[in-house]
Amino acid sequence: MRDAIRVIVLGTGQMGSAIARLVLEKDGLELAGAYARRAERKGMDIGRAIGLSKDLGLPVHSDLRIAVEKARPHVAIQATCSTLAEAKEPITALVQNGIHVISIAEEMAYPAASSPEAAAKIRRLAVSRGVAVVGTGINPGFVFDLLVIALTGVCWDIQSITATRINDLSPYGPSVLASQGVGLSLEKFREGLVKRTVVGHLGFPQSIHMIAASLGWDIERIEEHREPIISTVRRETPFATVQPGCSAGCLHSAVAYVKGAPVITLIHPQQICPHLEGVDTDDTIEIKGKPDIRFSGSPEIPGGVATAALAVNMVPRVLNAPAGLHCMTDLPAPAAMMGDARGLIRQSAWEGHHD
Amino acid sequence: MRDAIRVIVLGTGQMGSAIARLVLEKDGLELAGAYARRAERKGMDIGRAIGLSKDLGLPVHSDLRIAVEKARPHVAIQATCSTLAEAKEPITALVQNGIHVISIAEEMAYPAASSPEAAAKIRRLAVSRGVAVVGTGINPGFVFDLLVIALTGVCWDIQSITATRINDLSPYGPSVLASQGVGLSLEKFREGLVKRTVVGHLGFPQSIHMIAASLGWDIERIEEHREPIISTVRRETPFATVQPGCSAGCLHSAVAYVKGAPVITLIHPQQICPHLEGVDTDDTIEIKGKPDIRFSGSPEIPGGVATAALAVNMVPRVLNAPAGLHCMTDLPAPAAMMGDARGLIRQSAWEGHHD
Repeated sequence: MRDAIRVIVLGTGQMGSAIARLVLEKDGLELAGAYARRAERKGMDIGRAIGLSKDLGLPVHSDLRIAVEKARPHVAIQATCSTLAEAKEPITALVQNGIHVISIAEEMAYPAASSPEAAAKIRRLAVSRGVAVVGTGINPGFVFDLLVIALTGVCWDIQSITATRINDLSPYGPSVLASQGVGLSLEKFREGLVKRTVVGHLGFPQSIHMIAASLGWDIERIEEHREPIISTVRRETPFATVQPGCSAGCLHSAVAYVKGAPVITLIHPQQICPHLEGVDTDDTIEIKGKPDIRFSGSPEIPGGVATAALAVNMVPRVLNAPAGLHCMTDLPAPAAMMGDARGLIRQSAWEGHHD
Repeated sequence: MRDAIRVIVLGTGQMGSAIARLVLEKDGLELAGAYARRAERKGMDIGRAIGLSKDLGLPVHSDLRIAVEKARPHVAIQATCSTLAEAKEPITALVQNGIHVISIAEEMAYPAASSPEAAAKIRRLAVSRGVAVVGTGINPGFVFDLLVIALTGVCWDIQSITATRINDLSPYGPSVLASQGVGLSLEKFREGLVKRTVVGHLGFPQSIHMIAASLGWDIERIEEHREPIISTVRRETPFATVQPGCSAGCLHSAVAYVKGAPVITLIHPQQICPHLEGVDTDDTIEIKGKPDIRFSGSPEIPGGVATAALAVNMVPRVLNAPAGLHCMTDLPAPAAMMGDARGLIRQSAWEGHHD
């Protein structure tokens, strides 16, 4: 059997570290290198940087060019940012080097939603370099779009789609909690919305455009709405305390319209300790149409674990994909990798790759 | 915009008729012809044959060669049989004529499960003729395989998968009910199992091999088990009566083993009037792994409606696919077609088609 698929991970934060650890677990994948934006990580052993108790004998690089030269990767998994504006520079550099890219930047799930021009540029470059680029993650990339779309496959007709994800932010750190306004008074929450320090969920336009493109709907407009989840009880995690009357998180929703009718509604209340007020976490997809479909799972699919899994499980999909920029619904559905990753790669993908 | 995508439907039974009616509803698709195996349908107007109250001005053909000559289809949807042995002749003829094929024959969902040789033959012919062939349907093709596989995409590791589909056979006709042993005494049910008149669900090996191929599991063996669902009450539909103590249907299950461990369990009790004994119909997928996943929907996705929808919704997927024989997990997930079907076709697919 040929050599392992060499993977470089960009980012050694919580997500990048989880992705790197999962790459290490998978037969047929080799963790060939890691890049960190933070200069203070430079030279640190990758094993330590990603939370292992052992060295891997490879240093973290903080210069992407050098990281790529040393790692000679087939695939890069990018976990350094959320926006297309931030993601496009490293992705462009990777693609120019003939490296396939999987990004968990939320806006990369459907890049044309934030910038059709930037998306077209990445697409053209990927085609010219013969590599594939895809954005993935739990949301956007899975619950609010891929899973919704797959379920519509059994429908003759659809009037409307509603998907709700009620999750628990308790495991998250200070920056995520701040972005959802956890612990703020009503006044401070409103202020945070104006100042854009409270942002809610990043990814509704991406999920909506992915659904619309798959179904053939022309979306007229998207309305987003953010409001505080006012707690009636005291809630506490290592990184936040919510007093009664203050915000335990953000109820963010988006509605998309076709011909004046609301056809897609996505609802994502994110808060700490929802169970303290009897709220069960879950993912629910409801389709009104022929037939009506309702699927749900409780508790919700855990976001961090799932995003790392999707990023790594997409490695064979990206290697098998035609050159270009893809979204999750352009490619075969992801699957857990339980055997050797090389066994999932079509021969033609290897032949096409010049390494 | 270019002309509509011409679709021929093979089969004017319950499923073929539903598929043809749905083709008529969809913008960008044209019902270009219909073929019936039954000679007595020959010459009948397609509209009447598929249950419309109007003529369509096109006759049903009972000679496939003539049907294809008249219809000049881009895509054929085949709904005449369940087994690969029966399906391979018409599919071969269609592929030889450069026509893409979507089949709802259960064994076509993963043809290599019943005959790797026949599958390889269809694959080679499809590649040589530049067309794509795929098998689909609610099961195999969706609940027990595609949906399961997509959900595994969020997993780092999997110990086992269990999927259960509890459905209601009340809408079905005599042949389906007979195949599930509805109304039989325990003794007659056992006799039917031996004589293979009671067969249960057709498609477990196909779903299991599809999951295993996607995840990279080497299946050692599959055990199937069929037993009567003994009713304690009287149950009745237009086509069957079940006395207390007799069989209301068949509880059919399959277990697949990897390295001695049961890793995939598929459970499909099929019966009439399950609600009379307080049984709710549903589809449930449970994954034990990292993380555990449980998704379910009640009532179950209606099988007939869903199979017709999947067959028609796969038209753009098949036109966009590379030439060859595919299963549902080789292609992007299906989606309901809410716009013009032509808008979902990549330009290259049209360019590649010589009509």
